Amino acid sequence: MRMPHYIRRIQAGGVNPKPNIRVIEERAAMALVHGDNGMGHLVMKRATEIAVAKARTCGVAWVGSVFSNHAGPASLYPRMALEHGMVALYFAVGNANHLPPWGGLDMLLSTNPIAVAIPTHEEPPVVLDMATTVAAYGKVKTKVQRGETMPEGWMVDREGKALTDPKRASEGLLLPIGGYKGYGLALIFGLLAGTLNGAAMGKDVVDFNADDVTPTNTGQSICVIDPAAFGDPLEFKKRVDVVVRDLRASERMPGVERIWLPGEQSYIKRKEAERVGTPIAPALRKSLDALAVSLGISKLGEQT
Amino acid sequence: MRMPHYIRRIQAGGVNPKPNIRVIEERAAMALVHGDNGMGHLVMKRATEIAVAKARTCGVAWVGSVFSNHAGPASLYPRMALEHGMVALYFAVGNANHLPPWGGLDMLLSTNPIAVAIPTHEEPPVVLDMATTVAAYGKVKTKVQRGETMPEGWMVDREGKALTDPKRASEGLLLPIGGYKGYGLALIFGLLAGTLNGAAMGKDVVDFNADDVTPTNTGQSICVIDPAAFGDPLEFKKRVDVVVRDLRASERMPGVERIWLPGEQSYIKRKEAERVGTPIAPALRKSLDALAVSLGISKLGEQT
Repeated sequence: MRMPHYIRRIQAGGVNPKPNIRVIEERAAMALVHGDNGMGHLVMKRATEIAVAKARTCGVAWVGSVFSNHAGPASLYPRMALEHGMVALYFAVGNANHLPPWGGLDMLLSTNPIAVAIPTHEEPPVVLDMATTVAAYGKVKTKVQRGETMPEGWMVDREGKALTDPKRASEGLLLPIGGYKGYGLALIFGLLAGTLNGAAMGKDVVDFNADDVTPTNTGQSICVIDPAAFGDPLEFKKRVDVVVRDLRASERMPGVERIWLPGEQSYIKRKEAERVGTPIAPALRKSLDALAVSLGISKLGEQT
Repeated sequence: MRMPHYIRRIQAGGVNPKPNIRVIEERAAMALVHGDNGMGHLVMKRATEIAVAKARTCGVAWVGSVFSNHAGPASLYPRMALEHGMVALYFAVGNANHLPPWGGLDMLLSTNPIAVAIPTHEEPPVVLDMATTVAAYGKVKTKVQRGETMPEGWMVDREGKALTDPKRASEGLLLPIGGYKGYGLALIFGLLAGTLNGAAMGKDVVDFNADDVTPTNTGQSICVIDPAAFGDPLEFKKRVDVVVRDLRASERMPGVERIWLPGEQSYIKRKEAERVGTPIAPALRKSLDALAVSLGISKLGEQT
């Protein structure tokens, strides 16, 4: 879905396609990675690899990025640590500000996300990946496409009144989860992922939807924990399984068919996609095909 | 406020007043502290001191506790790290389950809190300290005392309908912030503070309001980051000041007198208390006086 946007920024010179990604600060359990304005995916893949290696030795490691870019779904990087049986927390500064401080009107914060992955033994891993607003901005856009109204609680207008017409979204403000609590989380995650690393945060954030040229100086942080440092890692994974199963077995509210764990639905969809292929909506397929033509490369599924 | 409860548990043998608090697992950037069922305040003070010392060397450190107890306000420990110019994140498993999984009815989760402290140069430090439910359970109790109704969004009944009569709280469920998102956060924070350390989580949590005898095996975790590892620590603090001031200077919604930063109101109250003394409500004073009499010690303000 983001591919056309990524390509547009690379072609406009806003992203460096051949970055010199390098560690500029380092201690036993931390590193600061300079992304050289490369794709965030490359920067955070490197950062996560460093964090996993350091966590194996030190028990825990924290690696931040500066002069990075949008890195795709937040959960990608904690899930990399899962492959090593490790726990990971990821924080990022979003690439457009949609959130004011609580009680305010100026869009000074992004919907700064957190993603956390926790390994299990037999159950799907617990993977939380969430924005700090009730609804991510993408969900608002989907409501416009479908001609639906938004539920109360997603947005308010500049008077603080509920805004439910998604076509009026540009006049409104996204609401943080739990009111001032979500504002606090968006701020804290932004300070941890942006300000600590010397990356953009608050007023400095470049709206990468509106600007294809200016380097975003995006910041991200990943913290990796090796459960083997705390005791038998298999016993830990089995204890997580027990918690997962107890939650799933809870008595349910009327009308609720199943209790889900964070990341469980994505896990099932991904396993299904591995088996039968990844479904691509016709509109997305069309946009990717057009992109392939414009780049002079083969379309998806076309023989090269 | 919690003093009578703490004393009651110590007298009943539920808490070890002379614990042998010790490190049972250790690597360069982590430690697991066995609290020997001592007061959580002692355990987490020790854990935070270890984390600060390790972060100074390794850049970051993560210290967990097992067989600890309730440790007072979550923000206490991240604020200890502030005194060393460090950033800290704290997670805890609460000592009573008030939250079901999203869509469920069984109280399998506590309102597991997060607290984060971030140092500043001239501004009050940014200190977030929050439960993962819209309202903490203590707020519900306060509504009963005052004979007030609760706003919609704090609790629902077992059919999922809004519950606004705080006297019916025992029939209801607290709502997590952002719905399933807050459920995810409560779960993740509990896995990081409890399950990772081998401490109680989920079904194992002992309700310390109802049970004075059983060791709670409370778990907490603190992660300390030294900004000096990432660059000039003074420059970092100044950058946080800039974000704080930009947020405070935001245009405000009608009727909003001031934009607050997380921890700013507590900071002002604490500074005021340092100047003129700590105000104690008459009911609390009475309960502390009764406690002093029962223990054969002098009351607050009494000459010894």
